[in-house]
Amino acid sequence: MLVVMKAHATEEQVRAVCERIESLGYRPHAIPGAQRTAIGITGNKGAMEAGALEEMSGVQEVIIVSKPYKLVSRDVKEEDTVINLPGTDAAVGGRELGIVAGPCAIECREQAFAIAERVAKTGARFFRGGAYKPRTSPYAFQGMGEAGLKIMAEIRDRFGLRIVTEAIDNESLDLVAEYADVVQIGARNMQNFSLLKKAGKIRKPVLLKRGMSATLEEFLMAAEYILSEGNYEVILCERGVRTFADHTRNTLDLSIVPAVQKLSHLPILVDPSHGTGKRDKVLPLSRAAIAVGADGLIVEVHHDPDRALSDGMQSLFPDQFDELMAEIRQIAPVVHRTLQEPLRQPVVAKAGK
Amino acid sequence: MLVVMKAHATEEQVRAVCERIESLGYRPHAIPGAQRTAIGITGNKGAMEAGALEEMSGVQEVIIVSKPYKLVSRDVKEEDTVINLPGTDAAVGGRELGIVAGPCAIECREQAFAIAERVAKTGARFFRGGAYKPRTSPYAFQGMGEAGLKIMAEIRDRFGLRIVTEAIDNESLDLVAEYADVVQIGARNMQNFSLLKKAGKIRKPVLLKRGMSATLEEFLMAAEYILSEGNYEVILCERGVRTFADHTRNTLDLSIVPAVQKLSHLPILVDPSHGTGKRDKVLPLSRAAIAVGADGLIVEVHHDPDRALSDGMQSLFPDQFDELMAEIRQIAPVVHRTLQEPLRQPVVAKAGK
Amino acid sequence: MLVVMKAHATEEQVRAVCERIESLGYRPHAIPGAQRTAIGITGNKGAMEAGALEEMSGVQEVIIVSKPYKLVSRDVKEEDTVINLPGTDAAVGGRELGIVAGPCAIECREQAFAIAERVAKTGARFFRGGAYKPRTSPYAFQGMGEAGLKIMAEIRDRFGLRIVTEAIDNESLDLVAEYADVVQIGARNMQNFSLLKKAGKIRKPVLLKRGMSATLEEFLMAAEYILSEGNYEVILCERGVRTFADHTRNTLDLSIVPAVQKLSHLPILVDPSHGTGKRDKVLPLSRAAIAVGADGLIVEVHHDPDRALSDGMQSLFPDQFDELMAEIRQIAPVVHRTLQEPLRQPVVAKAGK
Amino acid sequence: MLVVMKAHATEEQVRAVCERIESLGYRPHAIPGAQRTAIGITGNKGAMEAGALEEMSGVQEVIIVSKPYKLVSRDVKEEDTVINLPGTDAAVGGRELGIVAGPCAIECREQAFAIAERVAKTGARFFRGGAYKPRTSPYAFQGMGEAGLKIMAEIRDRFGLRIVTEAIDNESLDLVAEYADVVQIGARNMQNFSLLKKAGKIRKPVLLKRGMSATLEEFLMAAEYILSEGNYEVILCERGVRTFADHTRNTLDLSIVPAVQKLSHLPILVDPSHGTGKRDKVLPLSRAAIAVGADGLIVEVHHDPDRALSDGMQSLFPDQFDELMAEIRQIAPVVHRTLQEPLRQPVVAKAGK
Repeated sequence: MLVVMKAHATEEQVRAVCERIESLGYRPHAIPGAQRTAIGITGNKGAMEAGALEEMSGVQEVIIVSKPYKLVSRDVKEEDTVINLPGTDAAVGGRELGIVAGPCAIECREQAFAIAERVAKTGARFFRGGAYKPRTSPYAFQGMGEAGLKIMAEIRDRFGLRIVTEAIDNESLDLVAEYADVVQIGARNMQNFSLLKKAGKIRKPVLLKRGMSATLEEFLMAAEYILSEGNYEVILCERGVRTFADHTRNTLDLSIVPAVQKLSHLPILVDPSHGTGKRDKVLPLSRAAIAVGADGLIVEVHHDPDRALSDGMQSLFPDQFDELMAEIRQIAPVVHRTLQEPLRQPVVAKAGK
Repeated sequence: MLVVMKAHATEEQVRAVCERIESLGYRPHAIPGAQRTAIGITGNKGAMEAGALEEMSGVQEVIIVSKPYKLVSRDVKEEDTVINLPGTDAAVGGRELGIVAGPCAIECREQAFAIAERVAKTGARFFRGGAYKPRTSPYAFQGMGEAGLKIMAEIRDRFGLRIVTEAIDNESLDLVAEYADVVQIGARNMQNFSLLKKAGKIRKPVLLKRGMSATLEEFLMAAEYILSEGNYEVILCERGVRTFADHTRNTLDLSIVPAVQKLSHLPILVDPSHGTGKRDKVLPLSRAAIAVGADGLIVEVHHDPDRALSDGMQSLFPDQFDELMAEIRQIAPVVHRTLQEPLRQPVVAKAGK
Repeated sequence: MLVVMKAHATEEQVRAVCERIESLGYRPHAIPGAQRTAIGITGNKGAMEAGALEEMSGVQEVIIVSKPYKLVSRDVKEEDTVINLPGTDAAVGGRELGIVAGPCAIECREQAFAIAERVAKTGARFFRGGAYKPRTSPYAFQGMGEAGLKIMAEIRDRFGLRIVTEAIDNESLDLVAEYADVVQIGARNMQNFSLLKKAGKIRKPVLLKRGMSATLEEFLMAAEYILSEGNYEVILCERGVRTFADHTRNTLDLSIVPAVQKLSHLPILVDPSHGTGKRDKVLPLSRAAIAVGADGLIVEVHHDPDRALSDGMQSLFPDQFDELMAEIRQIAPVVHRTLQEPLRQPVVAKAGK
Repeated sequence: MLVVMKAHATEEQVRAVCERIESLGYRPHAIPGAQRTAIGITGNKGAMEAGALEEMSGVQEVIIVSKPYKLVSRDVKEEDTVINLPGTDAAVGGRELGIVAGPCAIECREQAFAIAERVAKTGARFFRGGAYKPRTSPYAFQGMGEAGLKIMAEIRDRFGLRIVTEAIDNESLDLVAEYADVVQIGARNMQNFSLLKKAGKIRKPVLLKRGMSATLEEFLMAAEYILSEGNYEVILCERGVRTFADHTRNTLDLSIVPAVQKLSHLPILVDPSHGTGKRDKVLPLSRAAIAVGADGLIVEVHHDPDRALSDGMQSLFPDQFDELMAEIRQIAPVVHRTLQEPLRQPVVAKAGK
């Protein structure tokens, strides 16, 4: 912490601030400048509340300096975290891009299988689908619940795809953790600290979406909640933030990808579907996300989006998803990444065993 | 919903859109204009997904018209909702301003009682204090839990103040609803739909804070979740939104007060403490909140803010809170409101019974 | 400036940063902390570019500490600036509230006189009206130009109102400064530095509106441009900023009023008309602006807003403006302000001389 | 325009609104719905002011439907605009990416030449450099003025690079238009309509940067100002917008690239230097900008950024710019673009003639 004194602050005022800092158990370091004095504060008692000093006579401003995150930081762990899904080749954060695709919500077995088959063929290794849906309106479709989870478990068996699906409260978390390979925590729950703590106690990787107006620091602190409970497998995900701009549903903030990578060892995906809210923007922003250096994508795909029970407007048709995969496959080498080749033989074979 | 066609859209394209609308079970109304045709959509099947039409040839844009909220709307109930606290004169939404004051967090019995005594003397009828604290950092003080709730119950008995305190998850909600008079749902949980639904099933009034980047519609829809489960006693609360502005912690959006009052029958308070994050801004913004027409305030007061375990920077000293009450007492008549007179006799008398 | 080193920075890295600071002509002050070292920088050479240090090994972050404004600051002039309009009782920044009212644009003599008569009767001392209009569309009404200025000069003679009107470029500035009592610079030109410099050379007060996304610092620096050229009579004006919120055209940021008053000696008005963009929000936000402590208001009034050539949606009817004045007259004493009494005798009398 | 009536609006209220619309010279189209009636408005008189209807009894909301831009729209011109620089191979908007690079400000002849030589070698065809600098502080370096323009004219002769430089007011515009190949209008002047009109009268292409909080519509309308005066050669440029996010100086909004391309025929560049404000973010965001489909980049390059007189923090070292060009050269084919090969022979040769 740094206290900046006013230009006209007297020596007594500077001394009084220093004494107050000492009385609170910290050590003051006065730095006299040409125009004004600044006072650095050190100590190993943890963060000091700025309010103790901000209103003293002669004080202009108090500036917070230390960053509050620890376990998510490269200060603690320098090398990138790679999250391997046990018993498979699938991983997030390694050299191969992690691609997650599927419908916004699981609506029925036929829908889910139709989409999963197409997703698997492209070379994606992860399938997404909501069983519990956080909807703005209480009158909108709220998801199939456990029945949806069971369908996804079947999809894992049949197509070999790893399952990513959202838990929306402590109750659904247990069930989701049982069925899913990766547990998603949505943007609206990014600061549901009770849920974060509980997610820190499960033994499955967690995909944590950035809140709609979360700063980088808040985003990392939300992840810190999970790590601090012992679960180190967190995948971050940028999904657009709320701004004044109205040509997309959210403003996709791709600059957070290199910013996260500088400060943290955790992998980060990009969600161009929620990030734009418009189908015709998903493909260009997917290319951009890979080019900026993201560890992968999470994309909504639906075989009949006009009749989708949620978010149809932003879901790709399967053919568009094929095109997306073809294009990012071309960009991957530029950022030293790879992508699994599309599958030739019928995926169904895999289900034979 | 309204479909706006491109300037050069052909008659066939217009016809195709109309047919698509009919095939989805709605009724199209083509409105030929000077430059382009628009197509209105009606039907009683509930909302249509815009995606079904947005990508058809000749379509420029699809505009959503209907508002999704029902029970919170003045369309359903024209007169203001007044929330009376049983067995007391305290109310929110009536002629008397509802003033809620107290520390950010309950830290110990002595602290809470010292503050409550001062709050009661000013004429405020509600005491706030956090027992469960949603903190950005997992390493920060997380609240006293049930022990804090018990201290607040004692404060109710002793000073006759009604208790407002936050529930942060389904687990704490039951306990909070047992001890508190009004259950608060914080800004970070405004779209924790699971918690909202559960809050709709309790029989205590709910104070719902606006999320950091919630639109008016999302705010009302969050309240709709509570009402839709049968709890009609919801108090809304503006507490500042996130913007680029950096001279306050959040940007207090006072214009939402008349905007809510136009659309909804629910009462709305203003929180100038979180809304500004700075002690010296709380008093002027409190005056402004009353002048704009809010039904009351929720304010942080602490007798020793420098040593407060959370949010000390934005807590008023008790003397400043006295001044605040004196000033809003002068503004109240301009907006046809009243405020309980400050108490002369020792508040302790009340505890005698 | 303060350089924050990484937790693991070596002594050599700290030393290298200190040497770099010295080589650039400044003085480093290393402050070893529990977790990391910070290095304060002082010197009287003016601001240093952070880039020189930000990318050195071991550097975590560079924090700018000094504020760049000088003449607008209370560091330079502690007492409030009061701007007196020569030859009149009108002033801005003193005990009496400064109220500016009138149509968005001067459309014709009849319109302007009809509105001015009503404005004068209420006790307002300033008349606003645009002769040069910055419009989003090149096809919209762009103002009457000098003919509009002449009408306003007549209004000054007839009703004794001081004239506030906007200059939109260096060309119009000369003409506006000749006719007007106060020259307005609009939000879109807040960082038109060429215009600001020229406004610093005229000998009329300047009303400077906050840009749509200007921080407090940028706002004060824009004023600094005017003062730095020798014109110390600047009136600031909050008129709403751009945010995600869509229930008003802009989000009126009333907290900037006390924030400006803390840092600067310049007076500040509030524009609730542009600040909300909706007629039914102007009255409540005007009350709030006075209650928060603003030095006055600038309000759009039109006798036939449905046919106004610009901004009709946010213009008050004259009767609504009467009500506004009556209400803020009640709030004024709470903030130790006064307001001229409404005029009883026909204003026209004044024109008799 | 569309008027949405309240759920309980009476038939008389609907009729009154229709009559009012007719009395203003437009045609109403009532669309009765299940819950409420909507009224479409058509007519060829140009836009109607919503205020005329918004406050009538029974009216819930008025929605603006028509878009106000004309000449910039694909409705008027379907094919992409390609801006060719006469007498050269340089172009913007065609198959070859348009790359503009150079220092923020021209500081002296040596600096400018040193940078230009490196820029030319990479295969970029445009050189940028500020002679007139819009600076937040009046005390900061304001540019070399005409002397800077002369240096850039020499650079054109010597290296064959086309010159892009900013005009900040009507006065500098004439001079800039004389020396430059492309005249830049900066973000702070995007709604300086006086300057836009004057730029519409010159016969040089104009590079128009998006304002810090400009919506897509306002951005296109600013371009419309230029086109409406007869200059059809406008290059748009995204340079980051202002949001709450603080990990970059601005939030680069890449989604506006496909959004512009859908609505307008004008080309659009991306400025990753101002868009991020941090050197280490320029390279990843440049890759992303090309991948999203932009027509090119404008990038700050400086051979000694630590001593740059402005924006050193975001300027690339020449070696980093070489790397940038190498990387986007790999991405170009994915988006069906090309890039001029880096030059082998000394660029100086060209100056020989």
